[in-house]
Amino acid sequence: MLMSTYSSFNLNYAPGVQSLVPILYTAWADHILTPTEIKTLRRLAEEAPFLTAEDKTTLLQWGQPTRPPSPHLFRYWEVELQRAAEQLPAGKPQTLAELGFYMAQQASEQPEQWDSPEILQYLTAFEAALGQVSLDTHRFIFNLPEPDLEGQAPGTPSYQDLKAVLDGDFGEIRDRMRTFLSDPVFQYREYNDKHQHREQVVEWLHLLSEQGFGALAYPFAQGGQHDMGTYATVFEMLGYHDLSLAIKFGVQFGLFGGSVQQLGTAPHHKKYLEAIGKGELLGCFAMTETGHGSNVRGLETTITYDVKKEEFVVHSPKEESGKEYIGNALHGELATVFGQLIVKGESHGIHAILVPLRDKSGATLPGIRVEDCGTKLGLNGVDNGRIWFDAVRVPRANLLNRFGDVSKDGQYSSPIESPARRFFTMLGTLVGGRVCVPRAGLSAAKSGLTIAIKYALKRRQFAPRQNEPETLLLDYPSHQRRLMPKLAKAYALHFALMELSKRFVAHEEEDMREIESLAAGLKSAATWFTTETLQECREACGGKGYLWENRIADLKADTDIFTTFEGDNTVLAQLVAKGLLSKFKKAFNEEGNLALLRYVSNRVTTAVTEQNPFAVRNTSRGHLLSEEFHSSAFDFRENRLTASLGQRLRGHIKAGMPSHEAAMKCQPHMIALAEAYVDRVTLAAFQKSLRQDMPATAQAALRTLYQLYALHTIESHKGWYLESDYMLGVKTKAIRSEVDRLCAEARTWANVYVEAFAIPNPLLGAAIVQTKDKS
Amino acid sequence: MLMSTYSSFNLNYAPGVQSLVPILYTAWADHILTPTEIKTLRRLAEEAPFLTAEDKTTLLQWGQPTRPPSPHLFRYWEVELQRAAEQLPAGKPQTLAELGFYMAQQASEQPEQWDSPEILQYLTAFEAALGQVSLDTHRFIFNLPEPDLEGQAPGTPSYQDLKAVLDGDFGEIRDRMRTFLSDPVFQYREYNDKHQHREQVVEWLHLLSEQGFGALAYPFAQGGQHDMGTYATVFEMLGYHDLSLAIKFGVQFGLFGGSVQQLGTAPHHKKYLEAIGKGELLGCFAMTETGHGSNVRGLETTITYDVKKEEFVVHSPKEESGKEYIGNALHGELATVFGQLIVKGESHGIHAILVPLRDKSGATLPGIRVEDCGTKLGLNGVDNGRIWFDAVRVPRANLLNRFGDVSKDGQYSSPIESPARRFFTMLGTLVGGRVCVPRAGLSAAKSGLTIAIKYALKRRQFAPRQNEPETLLLDYPSHQRRLMPKLAKAYALHFALMELSKRFVAHEEEDMREIESLAAGLKSAATWFTTETLQECREACGGKGYLWENRIADLKADTDIFTTFEGDNTVLAQLVAKGLLSKFKKAFNEEGNLALLRYVSNRVTTAVTEQNPFAVRNTSRGHLLSEEFHSSAFDFRENRLTASLGQRLRGHIKAGMPSHEAAMKCQPHMIALAEAYVDRVTLAAFQKSLRQDMPATAQAALRTLYQLYALHTIESHKGWYLESDYMLGVKTKAIRSEVDRLCAEARTWANVYVEAFAIPNPLLGAAIVQTKDKS
Repeated sequence: MLMSTYSSFNLNYAPGVQSLVPILYTAWADHILTPTEIKTLRRLAEEAPFLTAEDKTTLLQWGQPTRPPSPHLFRYWEVELQRAAEQLPAGKPQTLAELGFYMAQQASEQPEQWDSPEILQYLTAFEAALGQVSLDTHRFIFNLPEPDLEGQAPGTPSYQDLKAVLDGDFGEIRDRMRTFLSDPVFQYREYNDKHQHREQVVEWLHLLSEQGFGALAYPFAQGGQHDMGTYATVFEMLGYHDLSLAIKFGVQFGLFGGSVQQLGTAPHHKKYLEAIGKGELLGCFAMTETGHGSNVRGLETTITYDVKKEEFVVHSPKEESGKEYIGNALHGELATVFGQLIVKGESHGIHAILVPLRDKSGATLPGIRVEDCGTKLGLNGVDNGRIWFDAVRVPRANLLNRFGDVSKDGQYSSPIESPARRFFTMLGTLVGGRVCVPRAGLSAAKSGLTIAIKYALKRRQFAPRQNEPETLLLDYPSHQRRLMPKLAKAYALHFALMELSKRFVAHEEEDMREIESLAAGLKSAATWFTTETLQECREACGGKGYLWENRIADLKADTDIFTTFEGDNTVLAQLVAKGLLSKFKKAFNEEGNLALLRYVSNRVTTAVTEQNPFAVRNTSRGHLLSEEFHSSAFDFRENRLTASLGQRLRGHIKAGMPSHEAAMKCQPHMIALAEAYVDRVTLAAFQKSLRQDMPATAQAALRTLYQLYALHTIESHKGWYLESDYMLGVKTKAIRSEVDRLCAEARTWANVYVEAFAIPNPLLGAAIVQTKDKS
Repeated sequence: MLMSTYSSFNLNYAPGVQSLVPILYTAWADHILTPTEIKTLRRLAEEAPFLTAEDKTTLLQWGQPTRPPSPHLFRYWEVELQRAAEQLPAGKPQTLAELGFYMAQQASEQPEQWDSPEILQYLTAFEAALGQVSLDTHRFIFNLPEPDLEGQAPGTPSYQDLKAVLDGDFGEIRDRMRTFLSDPVFQYREYNDKHQHREQVVEWLHLLSEQGFGALAYPFAQGGQHDMGTYATVFEMLGYHDLSLAIKFGVQFGLFGGSVQQLGTAPHHKKYLEAIGKGELLGCFAMTETGHGSNVRGLETTITYDVKKEEFVVHSPKEESGKEYIGNALHGELATVFGQLIVKGESHGIHAILVPLRDKSGATLPGIRVEDCGTKLGLNGVDNGRIWFDAVRVPRANLLNRFGDVSKDGQYSSPIESPARRFFTMLGTLVGGRVCVPRAGLSAAKSGLTIAIKYALKRRQFAPRQNEPETLLLDYPSHQRRLMPKLAKAYALHFALMELSKRFVAHEEEDMREIESLAAGLKSAATWFTTETLQECREACGGKGYLWENRIADLKADTDIFTTFEGDNTVLAQLVAKGLLSKFKKAFNEEGNLALLRYVSNRVTTAVTEQNPFAVRNTSRGHLLSEEFHSSAFDFRENRLTASLGQRLRGHIKAGMPSHEAAMKCQPHMIALAEAYVDRVTLAAFQKSLRQDMPATAQAALRTLYQLYALHTIESHKGWYLESDYMLGVKTKAIRSEVDRLCAEARTWANVYVEAFAIPNPLLGAAIVQTKDKS
């Protein structure tokens, strides 16, 4: 920073710098320097004839997106700008250019030199190039009065209050991302072909790296922030934009970089992580094979140690063992490759190793074959490919050796003795992806809901009587039934995913098994929800929803694969059920049948006490809307399904069936249990959100959505509840009416609920809805 | 036909023609001349140096797709070919070329002239160009033995038997279409952009016209066959190919041509229909407006009669009154435009008029503005656009005047007095589309099921124990649960749609209201089914399902809009419910409350007798699998929902609510009723199909699917049945087990079930499944 004694203000900058402080302040006011702002500041530094070389250096320092001015300096600017604004001669337009023009004159010993129309013209042009100044910032500097708020119905919640609840601890980064992605460089467009789209995505990826977003979760030593919470939030926010970019980002920084970070050791971190975080070294996460997707343990790629040459030989023994669907396959230079580690003829199971794919010119290296996966339903901005290795040799140091290492002379060692535990520990590094993916998917669902609801608040069809206005789509009960429960569930899953992320970031080792179950369960529930919701939104917008210009088409196509990647949902659901049964199984293994019977009968007894003759037919609204009823019903479903699954498995096994077959036979039951578990956790997260500090209007509005989520979920399972004698028909019918009523109630604030997602208009990108941009 | 005395065979053709008979016979053996066969025959006629001008004329006559050789002539060829084949010298290759070569020599008085290697070479080249000869044809001509059939498990149904049941009365046209669309010109490819795709589709459209498919439903006088049944079957078969072509075909021949046929009178037919059927005059069906889609009565386009000039003025008063989403908008020369007919200041409601859009060069005419709708989620081979009319003048004769006419001096007249009935009669002409669209959609669903099931019969994942083979996807109960009930429902809907088509083709005027309801209901049920099924198939194929090369992506994207066009499904479902209530309402209007009460209580009494204490808990397999139980359960659902809807409506109306509001309040109830009605009709159609004549193995296999369809449908509504005390939990649980068992049973013949759809491999077009082409 350059100090001088020129100024009549305390800033003490040279006049040239002084003239630019208002513009700098404004560019930084939202804590982010967007790509267009960066470009503009750089151009300013280059072109403005009134700046000295020193001025330019100062300016370029402040033009780096990863180096915001310190809060202290920023506050200092703020005070001085307000002071200068007060002194600005009456009659002058209250613009940043005028303010800078005035400040430069004040700062100079020869003010007349700075009183040149050319300088003002320059400043004005740059102010314009930086685009719309936030009204709040302008009002703050020039001390303008608050605008009148439109008259609102009493009880109307403010979208800002709900937004604050949704944004939670990560409001600042969310707002930064809203601003950042609204920059014109991120504008959607149609691509002639997938190659053009891929080039655009990789260009955007570099803009994200430039902001330091890629390295967020990496250690400080490698240029990171050691901040997984913010990283996951950035990923969530990318879900409001082109999903190809989100996935490219996840592949590069999460899967590829994450594998180096999690499975590698200090030398790997030192050698690669900084370049990965900066996007200078693009890479792949090569796990899935054509023949083996879900069954990772069955991968066929071999990583064989050659003790003589002290090298590993990476090889795809068959066509089907080629790596399949690998993101970054066409842009990647390096790959984390998973395969069977073989040392002296002995297999040690799945390990990961770094294999260079290309030289700096982009040509594939000897022994590497890469094939484009071609056009996909969506995500065509991601370069997925197939990769085969023909006895590719890599140095011993390339083995990502945190959980398993091979010494020079070919001794295998591992800090984890059990091969099974070692395998699951390595796979555990995938959990981050399962925490992030559903969040980006949910963002897409929120975009879809925002578009469909705003359209339904605008579009009219059929009049009750001639010469009357036609009815708004959202006033049709069937339309409310389509969209309102989904809106409520979007809120519910949002809170559940926030809770999961929080636990994941703060995780203690002993908590990990449960977090893994939870991540698997929520990933599967939330991505299925996204697929269903976007389908419903497409249909709710009719033919308009089918047009590319209204965005739902892309959202649908891009997120469709979310139910498959990062673990197929059906497989994940079974994983969850197995986790839930583990206690049960432990009892079975350790204490035998008696303990099991005791366990089961305990569960069932608990359940039976809840099924008292009064409760099963209680249809009072107070009861139906109470959190107690919801918790009890959700708990009952999970407990009863756990117990009955345990009983059935035990029956099969007792009858001599091998455990694998027994599990097969109970597969649909297991999936039902996983769903019940996720529902119960989601309900609890929504209940917790209601306890947050917020104005009463916001809380009432949030409670309506909560009740709708809870009762609609119970209604969706009414067959099961009736079968289980947990409720009588009179009660399920009352619940149906209550859901109808809650849909109508939620419709009242529908616009506020979706405004609270605060998706900027350029990101929403739908021609049929012109919302005011609230970001 | 040319006769001569040259031949030693009875054909008596000149030697050149004689040499080509084997090739001609083979080309026609499947009753269709495909585009590649046509091209090859034409090339042959032009190029072969050994043909005389007369020979060429003969050949070109037989090379017209709409002029197949008469059955008599064809049989004649057959006999002679077999005879010649017998005489073919031993040692000669048994090819068509050799046979023709030999026959020409026999036919000539100078055989040595015809014994030229050049001629044999020509014939061989043309045989190759015509592609694979069907093995059956070859075997027939050369009297070869039947191939050994692989040993099959006893009880295995043959796919041909099931195919025969599915194909029903339209087996021949279905087989023709299978062959026709397998022609290489119809091969799928990726398009650089939508314009290229559109050009391809319009080219294909002309190939369809060339076969006479476009005119099938038109009168004989206009080059048609007056055969709606075959037309609808062609449309269904197009659903196995690129859906853009199906829709383009439907727009041109069904909607546009259909409107001229149905709403116009003799002069219109005479002037336009033949050119439309031949694809020489492309046109639009311009009904939907941006502001009014479902609510056709609210259209804003005006058609005003100018008595002085004896012309109509067609006008879009507002931007929102522009015609929206009009297919053929960019290729169309003429449009059927719907609007409010105004004569001497008086409005006569919606009428249709022909408006020229473009001159022969393709330039839009004065007053016409056309805008491309741009890229869509799918169907990008269809040129949808928006059209506005700025006071466009057309002659009086252009009014499609079957249901409403204006005389020279401006007198309006109509054969239908009531404006409401007139409106619904005109809209009734849309029913054809609602009969066809779900059939093409169902074809896409069958393609998806075939791909997903064949993949699941090939793809293995996870082994029960180490060193054992991994388990096939289709052996997982959850995978069976995903696909088998949908397969069963595909069969069910197939039979229901065949029944509907049959009734529609044979319709008597008094049957039309019910057919309209049925078409609306089945359209909505079948297209929703298609969307759900393709989603399930995509997920069941994992990442492979997401690749363009495996086809599901396109099927999904293209059919997604089927739930919206030809009537939004939600709106249609309400139409169905209103139809069902009409008797009810009539009783209400004519006889007042007492009659209504009687009606309701009759219904409910019927219902109660079915709920006897024994039936509600009867879980015997014989009962659960019986058609009686299914019919009773499906009937009960429809009847009870009708009665309760009636009661609720009556309650609201009695309480003073206007009928429009009352209907609004009951909207979800109406949609549930429509579904119950369609389910009941579908069940009956499936039951009827079981009565067809077929081998016992086929019948047993079909019955399994029937039972699965019936019980799975009941299971899906178990909440409602339990609420209604129609069943106890013990019975719904037994049904669940029975559905599990039926899924496993259906899995046994899964491959046969999908082979019976007989979708040729080139049409399936999925890289992951290489089925043998059975067509």
